[in-house]
Amino acid sequence: MMKGNQAVRWRVLLVGATGTLGRAIAAELGARHEIIRAGRTSGDLRLDLSDAASIRDALAQVGEFDAVVSAAGHVEFAPLEDFQAAAIGESRHTLGLTSKLLGQVNLALAARDHLRDGGSITLTTGITLEQPIVGGSSASMVNGALEGFVRAAAIELPRGLRINAVSPNLLVEASPAIQALFPGFEPVPAARAALAFRRSVEGRQTGQVYRVF
Amino acid sequence: MMKGNQAVRWRVLLVGATGTLGRAIAAELGARHEIIRAGRTSGDLRLDLSDAASIRDALAQVGEFDAVVSAAGHVEFAPLEDFQAAAIGESRHTLGLTSKLLGQVNLALAARDHLRDGGSITLTTGITLEQPIVGGSSASMVNGALEGFVRAAAIELPRGLRINAVSPNLLVEASPAIQALFPGFEPVPAARAALAFRRSVEGRQTGQVYRVF
Repeated sequence: MMKGNQAVRWRVLLVGATGTLGRAIAAELGARHEIIRAGRTSGDLRLDLSDAASIRDALAQVGEFDAVVSAAGHVEFAPLEDFQAAAIGESRHTLGLTSKLLGQVNLALAARDHLRDGGSITLTTGITLEQPIVGGSSASMVNGALEGFVRAAAIELPRGLRINAVSPNLLVEASPAIQALFPGFEPVPAARAALAFRRSVEGRQTGQVYRVF
Repeated sequence: MMKGNQAVRWRVLLVGATGTLGRAIAAELGARHEIIRAGRTSGDLRLDLSDAASIRDALAQVGEFDAVVSAAGHVEFAPLEDFQAAAIGESRHTLGLTSKLLGQVNLALAARDHLRDGGSITLTTGITLEQPIVGGSSASMVNGALEGFVRAAAIELPRGLRINAVSPNLLVEASPAIQALFPGFEPVPAARAALAFRRSVEGRQTGQVYRVF
């Protein structure tokens, strides 16, 4: 991985491989690298981001790899008025904390033990941190947390390991229900967002948030 | 509150009133407003930010108020290598998610029902979002989440309610152990940070993060 030779074929673990974004990332990276697809219900191996034990078990099966890419994690879109003070797990606004946030953070933490020197971690955040939408308070919260974690973890990772995030705009391929939440946003094709994942994996930067909007 | 008359005396609920920052805020705001002090173990009423029921119960006792200010919430500072993939509540890096993050978010959500029209919510984040430190990955994550939440909640709050955050640098009054985590940071007096809380409470902006560094 550290040879600076882009012709080298890497092992890339892709979590959330069957989603819209995941498929585009697999297409972008699959031309040059071995893609190991992980998903809750399909792919080369089972991995449930909301379950730390599931993450550790899945990674142990993969062995060593050069990069891990996450295009997974769920957040709930709902009006702020629907969110009430509640404990983790008791309210919809906390779902993103256990899934999209802690799931991806735990994936990054677990991947440290399996990544080769100089290996890369890439997480997914989103445009709602900078550009809030009605119904997006949980998403904005989760995306802010991910960006803070990426920036901080980058200065402490050992063995030249790198960590970045990609923050995509609304995707062209998003469902009509999601499109309706983002009035006036200029959607980007998933294939364009996938380029930012390639930039993170094959580049050499760390602690970056690649914005695709 | 909406009269634009700074001589009006407001009811301000201050959570974390006995901490270094809380005392400075009480001194700054107490000259002009009635301060209701809430804390886990002392003050005018008991409020444990890590317990949603405790927040709801405490606010019900206060009745109506014009502003709520939080200078509370704990995060764990520890090397990234000490953080392992784990569920909420199982690892130290998740403590800040339940205390400083969700505690303050829940306080904001619960306060909606008790704030007078145009009332103000002010939460505390911190410099580690922009300027990560070794041992600060959990703090950076939590502070990013808070800033995302504040920005998003601001566009959905009803009745002219406002929400802002204050992001202080290292405080002059911080313990030597905390000081040691921030080499080369220029500490600010708690009294200076308290001015930003006054700006949030007595000003009219919303969705802002007032940085004191």
